[in-house]
Amino acid sequence: MPIARKISNALGSQSMIRKMFEEGNRLKKEHGADNVFDFSLGNPDIEPPPAFHRVFLRLAREDRKGSHAYMPNAGYPEVREALAAKASREHGVPIDGSHVVMAVGAAGGLNVVFKSILDGGDEVIVPRPYFMEYRSYVDNHGGVLVEVDTRADFSLDLDAIKAALSPKTRAVLINSPNNPTGRVYPAGDIEALGTILAAHGAPYLISDEPYREISYDGIVVPPIFASYDNSIVVSSYSKSLSLPGERIGYVAVGPKARDREELVNALIYATRILGFVNAPALMQRIVAELTFARVDVDVYARRRAAFTRILDEAGISYARPEGAFYLFCRVPPRKVSSGGDDERDFVELLKQRLVLGVPGSGFGKPGWIRFAYCVDEKIIKAAGTAFKKIMESW
Amino acid sequence: MPIARKISNALGSQSMIRKMFEEGNRLKKEHGADNVFDFSLGNPDIEPPPAFHRVFLRLAREDRKGSHAYMPNAGYPEVREALAAKASREHGVPIDGSHVVMAVGAAGGLNVVFKSILDGGDEVIVPRPYFMEYRSYVDNHGGVLVEVDTRADFSLDLDAIKAALSPKTRAVLINSPNNPTGRVYPAGDIEALGTILAAHGAPYLISDEPYREISYDGIVVPPIFASYDNSIVVSSYSKSLSLPGERIGYVAVGPKARDREELVNALIYATRILGFVNAPALMQRIVAELTFARVDVDVYARRRAAFTRILDEAGISYARPEGAFYLFCRVPPRKVSSGGDDERDFVELLKQRLVLGVPGSGFGKPGWIRFAYCVDEKIIKAAGTAFKKIMESW
Repeated sequence: MPIARKISNALGSQSMIRKMFEEGNRLKKEHGADNVFDFSLGNPDIEPPPAFHRVFLRLAREDRKGSHAYMPNAGYPEVREALAAKASREHGVPIDGSHVVMAVGAAGGLNVVFKSILDGGDEVIVPRPYFMEYRSYVDNHGGVLVEVDTRADFSLDLDAIKAALSPKTRAVLINSPNNPTGRVYPAGDIEALGTILAAHGAPYLISDEPYREISYDGIVVPPIFASYDNSIVVSSYSKSLSLPGERIGYVAVGPKARDREELVNALIYATRILGFVNAPALMQRIVAELTFARVDVDVYARRRAAFTRILDEAGISYARPEGAFYLFCRVPPRKVSSGGDDERDFVELLKQRLVLGVPGSGFGKPGWIRFAYCVDEKIIKAAGTAFKKIMESW
Repeated sequence: MPIARKISNALGSQSMIRKMFEEGNRLKKEHGADNVFDFSLGNPDIEPPPAFHRVFLRLAREDRKGSHAYMPNAGYPEVREALAAKASREHGVPIDGSHVVMAVGAAGGLNVVFKSILDGGDEVIVPRPYFMEYRSYVDNHGGVLVEVDTRADFSLDLDAIKAALSPKTRAVLINSPNNPTGRVYPAGDIEALGTILAAHGAPYLISDEPYREISYDGIVVPPIFASYDNSIVVSSYSKSLSLPGERIGYVAVGPKARDREELVNALIYATRILGFVNAPALMQRIVAELTFARVDVDVYARRRAAFTRILDEAGISYARPEGAFYLFCRVPPRKVSSGGDDERDFVELLKQRLVLGVPGSGFGKPGWIRFAYCVDEKIIKAAGTAFKKIMESW
């Protein structure tokens, strides 16, 4: 075998998200990009805010001496300070720049965290459904992902988490606003979770929150550090500034985390040995100047309205997103059961009408399907007819 | 313990290079930056070539729609094509863009390669001395690094490599021009190595070559793919364009590598699950336009001349570098033996005179010391007096 066994096995069951991405590209070539309703990938299509362009252009004009050289592995001290100030505001506690480590996106940050804290066989609890790559991130570093169910409305099932806690539990990983459900966990749930964790050996609470700034209806994503001491926040600018291709994010350690200095040193060391070395220099300096900027969330809100109208008319039920830009929909009941796999059949039927979504199995939740609405509102509206026809023949 | 045991142990014996880097910063604060002769870190101080600035500024002015979004995990197809053309030229065989995977620097690329090919306990052979982080990169993915000695002039000891080959050998990792020795392995040695590997189960030959474009005296770094089919080249623009902070590199798979398509798929998958996701978007587009550009190597050549003159006058022997920007020096024999650790004592004595280098132990070669000459020629020349005084009191 030319490659590692584990990778070989994994390649056989590739990420459904990426599979749909490639399927989408194929269909677009065949039918023209404007004729395919590709809701498969969470690739923000809104451009970065104008402030990004201004800072980008100014830094390019200056192109200061040494600005592309190595800096400390944790990132530029002044960038870490700027982001700590932002995190302090979001989490309601003072955070020092020395407790922020710049990361190659949130995905890079999560790998750095798991490398830093996991010994072989350590468990990480995650509420289901969840972003499927979490499984790989934990497995990369010898850990075991333990899935627990959420409640019917996809809010945290605290009893289920409590029941899953074991002496091997090293961390609980939450993602709010959630991909794929759009759920935002309210402050009360985070506080209650904190109380449970504190009473059970105080494992880490890892909050993956790249969608923090994308919420609707005035919902504010509650703070993490204020609710539980032993917390680690991982975030990125992939969604709030629409910069996913530039790989810029960060890890922040709670000011009251246990053995905080040792943890931060471990994060910095892991950043180095995993080969990230440091977050990209230019993007570090750009985001440090944009801590108050974000994309226009109203655009996403309008799309959510347009998409839910279509689903309502088609009679497809879904979780109403409080944040992020996904609609997690129940595969509708079939008029006549085929005795087959409804999820797979429905996804196939969608595809025949050139509508692409990701099967819920890809998030540990079969019987559901995720549509990403980070696509133009026109495309969403144009998909209405397709959804209607799909439901007629389902 | 708040962090993983392995990381905790490693933190105790932190990279000597980074330790010296921090020590250097401390001394600079105390004595002023111009008064410290910091030869510890391979952080290129030469600015990127003017062509870089031009492309950077043009792309910032255009700031095209979608240019910071996700692209395929392997990188932009047109960037992969451009780099394949460059690699074809360097390695004397036609390489297709589809066999190039963009990476977050060479360090990221090496982690992606090891994740892709190593099963638990697989061995990777590396000639000693070597860049110490290789040990972590291999260990991260369950592999075991097997060190073999080089010959007295630091050229490859083919018999030693042959003797170290075992059924568990998954790869041989070479680095030419070499860090820390500056040695460039001649074509004859690469070919002979290829013949040995082909006869012993054909493990991968991984060539880490970020210094390929930095060689002296007209020496051309020989091709890899032309000498051995089952080869993987990992490189970056950290040195050739002085962009280490931007984390841009690539992995190229030999056109005749075994099960090439499966290997490429594994590399792309590993890029994703390790959290790199993709190499930074902007830098991908920049380097694609700069395949013919590089920093002015003559600057490094002049520094090499200035530094070797000082060492010659001080009576310190060294390996004359054929490439890269390091001088690997033998810790000089002591007038009167202290019975202690000469390497440690000499490094301490250097430090008292504000001269910083990295102990050879940091590269698996005790009794030696590495000086990086990617610092201003003036600083190198000014260090002459310090070296003279150091030798007087040694």
